Amino acid sequence: MLGANNYGKAETRLVRVTRGGDGHHELVDLNVSVALAGDLAATHQSGDNAGVLPTDTQKNTVYAFAREFGAVPVEAFARRLAQHFVDSQPTIALARVSIEEYAWRRLGPHAFARGGEGIRTAAVSYDGSRTHVVAGITDLVLLNTTDSEFHGFAVDRYTTLAETTDRILATAVAAQWRYDPAPDDFDTAYAAVKQAMIDRFVGTYSYSLQQTLAAMGEGALAACPEVAEIRLSLPNKHHFLVDLAPFQLENPGEVYIAADRPYGLIEGTIRRDDAVDEPLAWALPR
Amino acid sequence: MLGANNYGKAETRLVRVTRGGDGHHELVDLNVSVALAGDLAATHQSGDNAGVLPTDTQKNTVYAFAREFGAVPVEAFARRLAQHFVDSQPTIALARVSIEEYAWRRLGPHAFARGGEGIRTAAVSYDGSRTHVVAGITDLVLLNTTDSEFHGFAVDRYTTLAETTDRILATAVAAQWRYDPAPDDFDTAYAAVKQAMIDRFVGTYSYSLQQTLAAMGEGALAACPEVAEIRLSLPNKHHFLVDLAPFQLENPGEVYIAADRPYGLIEGTIRRDDAVDEPLAWALPR
Amino acid sequence: MLGANNYGKAETRLVRVTRGGDGHHELVDLNVSVALAGDLAATHQSGDNAGVLPTDTQKNTVYAFAREFGAVPVEAFARRLAQHFVDSQPTIALARVSIEEYAWRRLGPHAFARGGEGIRTAAVSYDGSRTHVVAGITDLVLLNTTDSEFHGFAVDRYTTLAETTDRILATAVAAQWRYDPAPDDFDTAYAAVKQAMIDRFVGTYSYSLQQTLAAMGEGALAACPEVAEIRLSLPNKHHFLVDLAPFQLENPGEVYIAADRPYGLIEGTIRRDDAVDEPLAWALPR
Amino acid sequence: MLGANNYGKAETRLVRVTRGGDGHHELVDLNVSVALAGDLAATHQSGDNAGVLPTDTQKNTVYAFAREFGAVPVEAFARRLAQHFVDSQPTIALARVSIEEYAWRRLGPHAFARGGEGIRTAAVSYDGSRTHVVAGITDLVLLNTTDSEFHGFAVDRYTTLAETTDRILATAVAAQWRYDPAPDDFDTAYAAVKQAMIDRFVGTYSYSLQQTLAAMGEGALAACPEVAEIRLSLPNKHHFLVDLAPFQLENPGEVYIAADRPYGLIEGTIRRDDAVDEPLAWALPR
Repeated sequence: MLGANNYGKAETRLVRVTRGGDGHHELVDLNVSVALAGDLAATHQSGDNAGVLPTDTQKNTVYAFAREFGAVPVEAFARRLAQHFVDSQPTIALARVSIEEYAWRRLGPHAFARGGEGIRTAAVSYDGSRTHVVAGITDLVLLNTTDSEFHGFAVDRYTTLAETTDRILATAVAAQWRYDPAPDDFDTAYAAVKQAMIDRFVGTYSYSLQQTLAAMGEGALAACPEVAEIRLSLPNKHHFLVDLAPFQLENPGEVYIAADRPYGLIEGTIRRDDAVDEPLAWALPR
Repeated sequence: MLGANNYGKAETRLVRVTRGGDGHHELVDLNVSVALAGDLAATHQSGDNAGVLPTDTQKNTVYAFAREFGAVPVEAFARRLAQHFVDSQPTIALARVSIEEYAWRRLGPHAFARGGEGIRTAAVSYDGSRTHVVAGITDLVLLNTTDSEFHGFAVDRYTTLAETTDRILATAVAAQWRYDPAPDDFDTAYAAVKQAMIDRFVGTYSYSLQQTLAAMGEGALAACPEVAEIRLSLPNKHHFLVDLAPFQLENPGEVYIAADRPYGLIEGTIRRDDAVDEPLAWALPR
Repeated sequence: MLGANNYGKAETRLVRVTRGGDGHHELVDLNVSVALAGDLAATHQSGDNAGVLPTDTQKNTVYAFAREFGAVPVEAFARRLAQHFVDSQPTIALARVSIEEYAWRRLGPHAFARGGEGIRTAAVSYDGSRTHVVAGITDLVLLNTTDSEFHGFAVDRYTTLAETTDRILATAVAAQWRYDPAPDDFDTAYAAVKQAMIDRFVGTYSYSLQQTLAAMGEGALAACPEVAEIRLSLPNKHHFLVDLAPFQLENPGEVYIAADRPYGLIEGTIRRDDAVDEPLAWALPR
Repeated sequence: MLGANNYGKAETRLVRVTRGGDGHHELVDLNVSVALAGDLAATHQSGDNAGVLPTDTQKNTVYAFAREFGAVPVEAFARRLAQHFVDSQPTIALARVSIEEYAWRRLGPHAFARGGEGIRTAAVSYDGSRTHVVAGITDLVLLNTTDSEFHGFAVDRYTTLAETTDRILATAVAAQWRYDPAPDDFDTAYAAVKQAMIDRFVGTYSYSLQQTLAAMGEGALAACPEVAEIRLSLPNKHHFLVDLAPFQLENPGEVYIAADRPYGLIEGTIRRDDAVDEPLAWALPR
């Protein structure tokens, strides 16, 4: 029996240049993924593709819409694409469009350097009537050299970790927040949420990465009234103090090993009291 | 308000050697990730860690259990770990343990070469009473040079794709299947499901990758009665025929571009008629 | 002042199908990189491109030659391409063509699974008269669970490593060997060298990875008379025995951490007594 | 016969915090690789390790030296390490120490965000008497939306590329420059060279990426008198204008495909007239 299913074109790489008459150009650099669901049993069961809009067409649509309507803010671009597929294709009942936006710094009227801290993301789901807009950020790497403790934890037979009252706390923020309602200005809302998370990371005297996570989520909700809930996924990027005693050297919090694997992974949702569950906002049904 | 949350140690890399008295050794090579959920509000709200078993302890437990109980089959190892954390920690109500197993080919009594086709996976969720076992495979790359068509699809203003009656069909299989009940012999079940998927990929004359996906899922269910449902995620690894006409050369299905991005992505679930929804089997709540 | 320079098209991904009349197909999967050098001062100094064969043309040539002449063995394909660019372009004096070949296992007359142990490589340099053929392999991951010791090493103020008489020895072989003369049958030569390296890795009771490296290189020279010299680059993929004593468990060489970074890196050349230096065989001048 | 060889510890990840008494901290984040060569025949031939300083010791030395002497500027740190190994170990005749430095932006007295444009690199070689210092940068991604043409190129049977008088020019700069003599202030020299390359990329009206490469190299030499030569490796990150005509849309330089593979790769050296060849500066002998 065929259960939930979806299909689409993933990772369409789009660069959009806007050329001002005065030689002042704007640059947008995106990675766009489309996923569609609906009445697709026929193609699964017999290879009858009459209801299947090709993924190649989806890619074409991404490029054409970028030309016709512009590609930013990415939340609006994703929304336009999601609504188009459902509203124009009789077999398609659900669409989810996900976008990564890479940051570039202006070097001149028409010159740019790629950089920035973190990758902006957007994911919009649409079911023919309701539209869910989720904004986010990934790969925002933050580090405090102090103001982080970890002690008083549960201990069992397998516990060897020493308690600490001063450690490095570092993470690579991956966050997604659901707007309800969508804000008028996606760029302002994104900037406010990002900055609030950074401020809370920096400003929280932390007894656990969970505590920092909650503070970051609460900061996001406080900074932007349209954020109904925020999901954070924070790897604990461990930094281990090197034992230099064999070399007759002290190491008072100065030299650390930056470890790769394993790593702690802390995930949590912070939501307003009145937020409701909206599973479709986060993923198509599986 | 704190919503769903979890934490754990991700990507603990474990190699387990079993040394026979005759110099014949066995090798197991794993990547183990643990995620725990429960009554963890205190650490989020005030940094009170009394209910937090450190992720470092989780790592230690992985290594110690591998020594005490062995690490294969990975489904059983994940199950033992998941049950341990919930049953031994009063604050922990849910555990999910995910494992990747890398294949090695024997070269001698104690020598091996890493290889194989695909990475075996297991993920076990446990809530204190019920245990869900999901097995899987990733990175199984399959290709048919023919017996694949794609035509009769929906067409709109943005469609330029030509219909084809002979194309390369290639994918990197990522599949996860839920056992209910768990089979007695996880290795035999895994081998049967993997082989069935390969056989169906090879043996299906395909009019769409969706059709192939359904055939593979049905093959898995037919091969192993304990499989209640299977989720497949199949990227369409496009191969484009090169236009050699400018060089006065024909190209009758011989020379192709292997494209990176974008790619189609086809996802679907095949389930038995009587399969019920078990969300916890697939992920901890978010 | 302009010094050494080169240009070319890198990473042209080519899949070549050979279709037998009986439905029995052959599959070749390559990544081809071309680099050319010669009298290219004009384009650097003034943007005069009269002597610049576009990298796009190089890509086209890769595809067209695969159609006209076939793409295997890769050493011969690289040689044909390298000779073509130098012999046909007046400004081009040197060419180097590098190829990676990905292995597929046959599943049926026209079905395949990607796999294998290691990626076969070839790199051919040509200067208008002499042709240097270098074959190789990368990502061949080998492991011995025993028969490896490491002790008697130099000790200084910063040494804390314990001596060991039994450790895991693991590496990811990257090797390149220069043929002189080129063998008649590249496939047979490649298979012989690969197998000889594996046999020596497995069969050497090792007191250092350097010793194993030398044994592998000597094995390659012994297995194939056309190999004039071989360069090996062997990361020491460390496996650390886990200290389970805190858990009242012994660990007699059973449970290991597979570490990512840092790693030892051992590089060396084994050459015949009469081998001469051929820098062009290994890289274009920088 | 054993030819050239070397060994060492690669990718030691080091984070160095400097803690000011006022709570103002500095952060340095490095990846350090050591390679040593000398009289190492014994370990290759018989596994006699008396002359082998363990790679584990090299790692310890990296951490200890960071504590004792500081880790920046990275050129000086690499130099100190390279000289130490040769001068203290009788069997070691050559050392090469390579470092990557990851940039962090200050967020507060002891808080940081990882970011920046490009990764700073250093590589120092030492043979017991002479020290070669090479500085560099990788992953500096630059893009001009205009002021780039490409035409007048060589044409052969396989050429289909259209000439263009306006294209996007984008690259990921990898550059290494050799100092002779070493500058007094490595940070100032690095900043000057980096900025000069950016300025030349932005300011050059380009008829080929080779022309831009030469301009960047000349800019580097002009900006810093201690730079004897600079090697640039510039991938041509192709951006292809999308054909929107099938959708009745013009595309006047607005919507592009950002392609992954294949890519052009342009490499060249710009050197002062009096620069001499110093192969050891660039790599240990192979």
